[in-house]
Amino acid sequence: MPVSAGQSLRELRERKPLIHQITNYVVMNETANATLALGALPVMAHAPQEVEEMAGLAGALVLNIGTLSEDWVESMVLAGKATRAPIVLDPVGAGATRYRTETARRLLREVDIAVVRGNAAEIAILAGREAEIRGVESIGASDSPGELARQAARAFGNIAAVTGPIDHVSDGERVIAIANGHELLGTVSGTGCMATAVTGAFLAVKPHAPIEAAAEALVAFGVAGEDAAREAKGPGSFHAALYDALYNLDPETLDSRARVTG
Amino acid sequence: MPVSAGQSLRELRERKPLIHQITNYVVMNETANATLALGALPVMAHAPQEVEEMAGLAGALVLNIGTLSEDWVESMVLAGKATRAPIVLDPVGAGATRYRTETARRLLREVDIAVVRGNAAEIAILAGREAEIRGVESIGASDSPGELARQAARAFGNIAAVTGPIDHVSDGERVIAIANGHELLGTVSGTGCMATAVTGAFLAVKPHAPIEAAAEALVAFGVAGEDAAREAKGPGSFHAALYDALYNLDPETLDSRARVTG
Amino acid sequence: MPVSAGQSLRELRERKPLIHQITNYVVMNETANATLALGALPVMAHAPQEVEEMAGLAGALVLNIGTLSEDWVESMVLAGKATRAPIVLDPVGAGATRYRTETARRLLREVDIAVVRGNAAEIAILAGREAEIRGVESIGASDSPGELARQAARAFGNIAAVTGPIDHVSDGERVIAIANGHELLGTVSGTGCMATAVTGAFLAVKPHAPIEAAAEALVAFGVAGEDAAREAKGPGSFHAALYDALYNLDPETLDSRARVTG
Repeated sequence: MPVSAGQSLRELRERKPLIHQITNYVVMNETANATLALGALPVMAHAPQEVEEMAGLAGALVLNIGTLSEDWVESMVLAGKATRAPIVLDPVGAGATRYRTETARRLLREVDIAVVRGNAAEIAILAGREAEIRGVESIGASDSPGELARQAARAFGNIAAVTGPIDHVSDGERVIAIANGHELLGTVSGTGCMATAVTGAFLAVKPHAPIEAAAEALVAFGVAGEDAAREAKGPGSFHAALYDALYNLDPETLDSRARVTG
Repeated sequence: MPVSAGQSLRELRERKPLIHQITNYVVMNETANATLALGALPVMAHAPQEVEEMAGLAGALVLNIGTLSEDWVESMVLAGKATRAPIVLDPVGAGATRYRTETARRLLREVDIAVVRGNAAEIAILAGREAEIRGVESIGASDSPGELARQAARAFGNIAAVTGPIDHVSDGERVIAIANGHELLGTVSGTGCMATAVTGAFLAVKPHAPIEAAAEALVAFGVAGEDAAREAKGPGSFHAALYDALYNLDPETLDSRARVTG
Repeated sequence: MPVSAGQSLRELRERKPLIHQITNYVVMNETANATLALGALPVMAHAPQEVEEMAGLAGALVLNIGTLSEDWVESMVLAGKATRAPIVLDPVGAGATRYRTETARRLLREVDIAVVRGNAAEIAILAGREAEIRGVESIGASDSPGELARQAARAFGNIAAVTGPIDHVSDGERVIAIANGHELLGTVSGTGCMATAVTGAFLAVKPHAPIEAAAEALVAFGVAGEDAAREAKGPGSFHAALYDALYNLDPETLDSRARVTG
């Protein structure tokens, strides 16, 4: 199946899939607004009394361990087991503490994750490769990011999306590299989490082609980042412009702007 | 009592009422900032050890079930029973899951709610009318919104405020329609919750005229939305401009801009 | 040691210290973004399973009781006892409810706090002086702010930073006054909490000179506020511009803009 962010975005805006997000306190507003600006419908719900029902209604489920605690992890597992929608995992800070690493591993084991989206260090640590992380910031990994994505996808048995200056998405064989984006994305907290939410939205319209959906999401988010950077004076104006850019993404021209190889 | 958003806004800015909000994680910053930009004082507190004391100090109490869990619901009940200030309920996502519907019903039963502010589907489902909701998004309701507001107010025994392209507020007899607002409000997560917080602020200065207070709040918020839309390029710039607009609302001209009937 | 915000900012951006924040739901995104825009690395973590490990990795620990609950307070104590990094406490709303006052006192007693950053009423109440608070807003204190900072530092046995129109920082003897800032800071929720996070970042590079670090943080944050106010039309545009301004702070010119006495 071809990578066509434009075609998927058009479908997404027509179908407005519900994206159920069990995510962290820091970025909840941000990922809700990114999802909505793109054209999908965000919903946040974490109570054990309702996560299964809500996840059952969703077009995709997004799990993010950025401010995890035991109750929330249990709800992630409940929701993940209850839904038949594709699931994206964002293992925020895996490697920084044992609890985060173990929780990310548990989710990979107990829940049927379609795509893992993280930075190089998070993905490397979960895949059993060498890497260094500080807090939630990737410091470095020994593999090249493309090779890392491939190895991680094999280790996880799903799609690995390693984001960075150039993003790499792999199913364990094929590696797609996406060169869209802008360095200001690194100056705003939660842009990685937004990329994960956007991945969920694309997966909802392309559940049977997760590697293409993940690549398309990163094209769309990266192009929005490029647009947002145009008149930004720093992280604050960039952040506001990023929602404008997601909202104004043009499905007609999106594919011509994709910088995709592989 | 006449609907005069200008007069109430002037009083609100003089008295700066404390608006105690037990609300959802997604919009907490947004409703705090909307409350503050308008001219009132927001405070968020949810611990059972302090909610009664805090609610006792407040000029209004705002309850919002957008990311509910059992502990928070218990605190809502505690705070609601402890305060003598008017209470606004925002039943976010009622109808989407059984837990949300039942919790909203429980709050209506156990707490003396002055105003319920929601979208058409949320209000319809709570009032026992037909409607469809997806996540937290209203898809449709079988009643006209004015009639829905009237029926809901009768069912709840309080004021129902149904927001949408045109807002309708009713006490079960009279129906006030407010045509202020802008479609960009639908592209930012939490604008409904902000409208609820603003309703709390107006109720704090007009506790004995809740239908007028609710209508005035929606006039003020809608006019701010119109102002914010003027130079907005999308949801992000609109969102930032919305706080500017709330802050810059002019009590002198506000009533002349109100598009109110009924 | 001299107060040189420029020199410390230069070091901070080179070393990018990890600032572990256990803070309130309202401002979590805001303090993360302020920390990141300044040039340090924020991380939020509150689970008892990981707070000690995370605090052990941090260059500074920020504790903020803005939306406290029992679990979070226990984690604050755990993290505070586990770290050897300097700790800043933001006693949000101390004095508004007994629970907040007692919790702030408990943290001062059980944890080795380097700097307490609060508004006049919060600090006065904790120091056993007279003051009035409403919600999280300081209404007044009987001491002059400089004298209050001095008395509080003596009472707490650490550095007290009392922010307001003019900020005052004291170690119980010396009082440093900082006149940087802008009144629009008072129109955005969480700017006090951001000042606390920025204090943490400066403490991380100057742990053995906490009075200078606290003063430098307030210079840097105040100058950023002045820059942000330049083209702001209200709280929303000011808020976005504040992150731009923190990001664009120039270490070369910062000291020349400091309005510091004492």
